[in-house]
Amino acid sequence: MKGSNKLAVVALGGNALLRGNQQGTIEEQNANTVNSLESLVYLVRDGYDLIISHGNGPQVGNLLLDNAAGAELYGNAPMPLDACVALTQGQLGYMIERNLRNVLNARGLRRDVVAMVSQVIVDRDDPAMANPVKRVGKIYKREEAERLARGKGWTFKEEAKEGGGWRRVVPSPEPLDFMNASLVERLAREGNIVIVAGGGGIPVHVDDNGQVTPVEGVIDKDLASAMVGLRAHADELYILTDVPYIYKDYGRPTQQVLEFLDYRDTTRYLAEGMFAEGSMAPKIRACLHFVKHGGQKAVITEATKLEDRRYGSKITMEYEDDRR
Amino acid sequence: MKGSNKLAVVALGGNALLRGNQQGTIEEQNANTVNSLESLVYLVRDGYDLIISHGNGPQVGNLLLDNAAGAELYGNAPMPLDACVALTQGQLGYMIERNLRNVLNARGLRRDVVAMVSQVIVDRDDPAMANPVKRVGKIYKREEAERLARGKGWTFKEEAKEGGGWRRVVPSPEPLDFMNASLVERLAREGNIVIVAGGGGIPVHVDDNGQVTPVEGVIDKDLASAMVGLRAHADELYILTDVPYIYKDYGRPTQQVLEFLDYRDTTRYLAEGMFAEGSMAPKIRACLHFVKHGGQKAVITEATKLEDRRYGSKITMEYEDDRR
Repeated sequence: MKGSNKLAVVALGGNALLRGNQQGTIEEQNANTVNSLESLVYLVRDGYDLIISHGNGPQVGNLLLDNAAGAELYGNAPMPLDACVALTQGQLGYMIERNLRNVLNARGLRRDVVAMVSQVIVDRDDPAMANPVKRVGKIYKREEAERLARGKGWTFKEEAKEGGGWRRVVPSPEPLDFMNASLVERLAREGNIVIVAGGGGIPVHVDDNGQVTPVEGVIDKDLASAMVGLRAHADELYILTDVPYIYKDYGRPTQQVLEFLDYRDTTRYLAEGMFAEGSMAPKIRACLHFVKHGGQKAVITEATKLEDRRYGSKITMEYEDDRR
Repeated sequence: MKGSNKLAVVALGGNALLRGNQQGTIEEQNANTVNSLESLVYLVRDGYDLIISHGNGPQVGNLLLDNAAGAELYGNAPMPLDACVALTQGQLGYMIERNLRNVLNARGLRRDVVAMVSQVIVDRDDPAMANPVKRVGKIYKREEAERLARGKGWTFKEEAKEGGGWRRVVPSPEPLDFMNASLVERLAREGNIVIVAGGGGIPVHVDDNGQVTPVEGVIDKDLASAMVGLRAHADELYILTDVPYIYKDYGRPTQQVLEFLDYRDTTRYLAEGMFAEGSMAPKIRACLHFVKHGGQKAVITEATKLEDRRYGSKITMEYEDDRR
C-alpha cells in the first residue's frame, strides 16, 4: 500500500530523550523529548508520513537498577529483560505520544499519534545468541555475579576499568520482522504517526507452530529501525544522533564531512574501520541494510538539523547527486 | 461503524494477571494470564470482536516500591504516577498480547492482537481531584511522609492498623474519553483484538488549546472500561472477577444469586449498600453507567465461566428475560 506521501521511519537516539550526563528526572526527559520532536515538524510540514522508533538505553538502565534495588529492599521479583524493554516502551511511548501531540497541535498540525507495545521477531538460533556482547544492568561484585550466573544462567564480563566489577552481557540477535507490521504501515500511510520498536523492540522467537516466546537479548535499535522501514515499505530512514553529519577522519585535522554516500564506497569505509564501533558504525550498517533491501535513502543527522535539508549525510545505493 | 459481530469490552481484573498472595514472578504472571485468556476463546469462537482492558494494581505497586528502592540505593529519579501507569501498560500489554497470540494460535484462531499505550482523558477540575482516596505506593514512616508532603506536595493518610505508617493517597477522577478512540473501534471491528486503558489508563487533561498534561491520579479501571465501551460503541461489557455471580446478602445464610438485573433495581440495591465498596460496588457502578448510556448488556462473572453463558450476572436497562 503506497500513499502519495513519502513514508519515513525516524529513529530517535537515546540522547534524544535523555542524555548520559543527566539524572533522568521526568522534567529532563520531557524537555529533551519536546526538543527532539519539534524538529519532526519539518518532516510533517513536508507531507511525510511517519513511523517513530526510539532508544531506551538510559531508561532501561535505570529500570534494571530499580529492579535490583526493589529485590534487595522489598523482596520484589525482578523482571526479565523482555519485560523491562516492554516497561520502557510504555513509559517512552507515552512520553513521545503526549509531547508530540502537543508540539503538532501548537503548530496547527492535525495528526493522530499511536504508541504500540512492540515485539520484534528474532531467531533464537541466531549465531549471535552464542556471543553475548551487550552490557546491561548494574555492576556486580564477583561473588554476586557468580551467584547470578549459577542461579539464572546469566553471563558476565568484567568491566575494563580495574576493580570495575562485573556486568551482565546479553546477545544482540538480528531483527527479522515485527508484530503488526502491515497494520503499522497502513496506519502510518493514513497519516497517523505510529511509535514502534522502542528500545529495538521486545525480542521474541516464533516457532514453527506459531508460538511466541521471549528471547533474552537486546536488539540493536538502529538495525530494528531499518527492519521496520523495510517491513513497512518506508521510503526513507532518518537516524537522529548528536552530530549533523558523518565524517571521514572524525576528530582529526583531516576531518571531512561526508554528505553524499553510496553503498559501495560506504561499505568500503566501514570495512576500513573509518567509523567508530559502538557509535557511528552500527548506524551506518543499519542505513546500508535499508538501502540495499529497497529503501530509497537513509539520512544520519542531528534532530535540530531537519529544518534544512542541506544538512545530514545521505546514503543511497548510487550517489544521489552528480558531484562524484 | 458497526460490523455484523458484537463488539465487547472485556475488563481483566488485577487477579486475572497476578494474585495478591503471589510474589509477582514473571512465571506466576504468565501462568495467570494464560489461564484468564483461555476463557476469551469462547467469546472469539462466538464471533465477538474484542477490546481488552486490564488492571495493574499489584504491578504498579511493585514498581512504585522498585522506584523508591532505586532512589534510595542508586539515587535514581523516581517516576511520577502517570509514567508508572505507562510503564505497566508496556509490561502488561506485552504479556497479554504475546500470551493471547499463543492461546488463539494453538486453537487455530487467527486474530491479530495490538497493545496500545493508552491515555485516558479526565478533567483536572473534577471535584474528585480535591478528595484523594486511592492509596498508592509504599508505606512511609511519619518523618518521611512529612518530607515528601513538603517536597512534592503529596497527600498522605495514616494506615488503619495501629503503627501502620503513612501512605500516599491520590484522587480518582472520572474517565471522560480516551486517545485514539475511533481508531481503536475501527481496528477492533476489523477483527483485531485491541488492548487499551491498562490500569484505568494514563490520566491526562486536555486544555482549551488542545495541550495534553499529566494528571496525578488513578482512574478506576472498571469505570475506564465502561467509558472505553461507550466511546468505542461496544455492545457489551464483561467485567471478569473471582466470583461467578453477583450475590444478594453475599456470605450470609440468606445469600442469593443475582443473575438478571435491571437498571432500576440494581441502582436501588447499590443505594441500600448491598454491595461491598472497594470490591463489587465499583464494578456494578461501571456496569450501570455502561447500560445507562447506550451499552446493551454488562456481565460480571469469573473468567473461567465464559464457556457457559448461563453463568454470570447480566445487567441491562430492562430485565433481559421474562422471569421478573
